[in-house]
Amino acid sequence: MKTCNSNRLQQLIELFSEYGKTENNGVTRLSLSDEDIAARKKFQELCEEIELTVTYDDMGNMYATLAGKQNLPPIVIGSHLDSVIKGGRFDGVLGVLTALEAVYTIKEENIELDYPITIVNFTNEEGARFEPSLMASGVLSGKFDKTKMIASTDKNGIPFAQALNESGFEGLKENRLKEASAYIELHIEQGPVLERKNLDIGVVEGVLGMVCYEISVYGESNHAGTTPISMRKDPMFTTANMIADMQKQLQRLDSDLVYTIGRMNAYPNIHTVIPSEVTFTLEARHRDPGVIAEVTRMVEELPGNINGCSIKSTRLWDRDTVDFNEGVVNAVEYACKELGYKENRMYSGAGHDAQFIASYIPSAMIFVPSVNGYSHREDELTSYKDCAKGANVLLNAVLKLCLEKVSK
Amino acid sequence: MKTCNSNRLQQLIELFSEYGKTENNGVTRLSLSDEDIAARKKFQELCEEIELTVTYDDMGNMYATLAGKQNLPPIVIGSHLDSVIKGGRFDGVLGVLTALEAVYTIKEENIELDYPITIVNFTNEEGARFEPSLMASGVLSGKFDKTKMIASTDKNGIPFAQALNESGFEGLKENRLKEASAYIELHIEQGPVLERKNLDIGVVEGVLGMVCYEISVYGESNHAGTTPISMRKDPMFTTANMIADMQKQLQRLDSDLVYTIGRMNAYPNIHTVIPSEVTFTLEARHRDPGVIAEVTRMVEELPGNINGCSIKSTRLWDRDTVDFNEGVVNAVEYACKELGYKENRMYSGAGHDAQFIASYIPSAMIFVPSVNGYSHREDELTSYKDCAKGANVLLNAVLKLCLEKVSK
Repeated sequence: MKTCNSNRLQQLIELFSEYGKTENNGVTRLSLSDEDIAARKKFQELCEEIELTVTYDDMGNMYATLAGKQNLPPIVIGSHLDSVIKGGRFDGVLGVLTALEAVYTIKEENIELDYPITIVNFTNEEGARFEPSLMASGVLSGKFDKTKMIASTDKNGIPFAQALNESGFEGLKENRLKEASAYIELHIEQGPVLERKNLDIGVVEGVLGMVCYEISVYGESNHAGTTPISMRKDPMFTTANMIADMQKQLQRLDSDLVYTIGRMNAYPNIHTVIPSEVTFTLEARHRDPGVIAEVTRMVEELPGNINGCSIKSTRLWDRDTVDFNEGVVNAVEYACKELGYKENRMYSGAGHDAQFIASYIPSAMIFVPSVNGYSHREDELTSYKDCAKGANVLLNAVLKLCLEKVSK
Repeated sequence: MKTCNSNRLQQLIELFSEYGKTENNGVTRLSLSDEDIAARKKFQELCEEIELTVTYDDMGNMYATLAGKQNLPPIVIGSHLDSVIKGGRFDGVLGVLTALEAVYTIKEENIELDYPITIVNFTNEEGARFEPSLMASGVLSGKFDKTKMIASTDKNGIPFAQALNESGFEGLKENRLKEASAYIELHIEQGPVLERKNLDIGVVEGVLGMVCYEISVYGESNHAGTTPISMRKDPMFTTANMIADMQKQLQRLDSDLVYTIGRMNAYPNIHTVIPSEVTFTLEARHRDPGVIAEVTRMVEELPGNINGCSIKSTRLWDRDTVDFNEGVVNAVEYACKELGYKENRMYSGAGHDAQFIASYIPSAMIFVPSVNGYSHREDELTSYKDCAKGANVLLNAVLKLCLEKVSK
């Protein structure tokens, strides 16, 4: 078992926390912003200092490669440097920095590997400046159309294509991540499970399937003081009863099912006016497509009319469950066990670049604990000790894969 | 029985519909806006054409007086010329124009009255440009503090005091409506009751008491995909169940009780995030203070914590039921019966200047039907026939009060 230098990793995390630092110790490092460009330049500088070969592709993805003894497809490790607005110091960047620390250790200890090791920084994972999220990995994997993606504009009307061109990080399509032996992405859990169960590491087997609906309840707007109850078509009370009823049905499904009504808007949203419309989202995630199908059925079978209000549901999107590569997952699990870390296999409820990359490269993920399960907020926190454990698992999983000659 | 000239009334309504006309045949005539000022000037011009004496007071209220044979306190009739944004062609203005038509008829038929008749246009009834609504009648009746009111700013930061001064309609405090023999305000119902019951006129006995609460449910925000249901404090499902339960309790109270949840906001209102907070308003209106007290008790007795979410309620405001003057109400009812109109006594669920004026002047109101109960929207409609019936009731109620020598 090899171990990384936890002090050096901490210094790296602290260094990158400065790029886009907010007053509450978070970061705002939107994709291809000045802050992101500065972080990219520093990443490139650090990689070139240890003689990695740095390239970019036509989506601005960065690849820093340590040559292997043989001309094999690389083992790829990394994540993303961009953040949401007022995000934290760990989401994304930790996957890049633990990868860099792992390579530092490999070089420092003169470990000679048959496989090249490539550290990747995926562009615009968050989608916080240019929608959608997972943009660049989506293009690489053929899930998204490049032409549409690079036309995506930020709130100032600047297209992604322009921002990428001006950033200096626009490279060649031929540099895209194509064939690789494996991809491992370390990421914060963004949920409370590891912390509550007192675990060090989540061995991520895949990403949960999900479905998301927008449900609108249309009633009749009128003056709150002058319309007798018996003459109302009130979408607010109708919605409240519908949601209470949906909750009962959802509770009867599998206990691992997660379901959320995150967005709700009433129109015109004035206290003295009976709303004409209430619209809300319902999203649900589960590993088993059969359970998701039950949720779908529940929504699709909603009556068209309740208490004089008409109901309309729109499927906003869905994704199938992604199962990671068993060999790569096993290598992560093996590393945990060898290091004596408390781990559990789990699925990711959140989306990650790995879910797209997994479609053409054997992939897995490593989760480290999130204090209180918080993410996408300035007080997002993973202890430096847990970060170092994550780096150690990443390093040893890579070494394990090299020993196993994953690509045959 | 006297009757007004329904054609002339229709022309008046059509004329004033031009001031602030919207493309969908509604009006936007915010208080003291250019559109409102133009309507005020036209109103003054029409009044002066028939030799009424026009004055303004220090809140911009306009008074157009037809002298009486005796020096008695006037009988006051009118309403307001201002509208909400994209409001209708009847709300408010109809009370002023039916009053003008009644005076036209009195003059035309050479009816000599002991009492002066004053047509009033109250400033800023809607509160749509400067909060609060009923501003000027609130100041006249001592409910609102003038200094605070005139400091109220519109969305461009312009204070009421400045807008009034620049309008040319700022007059003297000594011109305020003080002593009067009666006040009658004709207004559209803004509810569906008259239309549904196939009635011509609502004889308004008073204005319903009400209470309005803001209720906040605080949970814990987290990622919708990564937080197991058992680890959530979800304010959205807690709110839905609370509202469904409140509805059951409210339904058990008096069937005349009206209750509305008109405003609801979830934070951060993102479909992939469990909300940290859901806040909504609950308002209820009823004639009987005992029923309102039951609503108050229900809200005040909400538990402080439900399903891990903390609950906080704030009483935003309330108003006591206002009972109008029996003598003035009787005069309105008498006029309806003499004219052979189908009428019913009713309370107003909406607030009107009359509710404040009633505190020091014997008052009543006349309601005319609103098609579909709509108001505060561009398709607000009262048929010209119903408008004319309203004007006839107003005219004959005034004549009845004069005959009765209301002020002794």
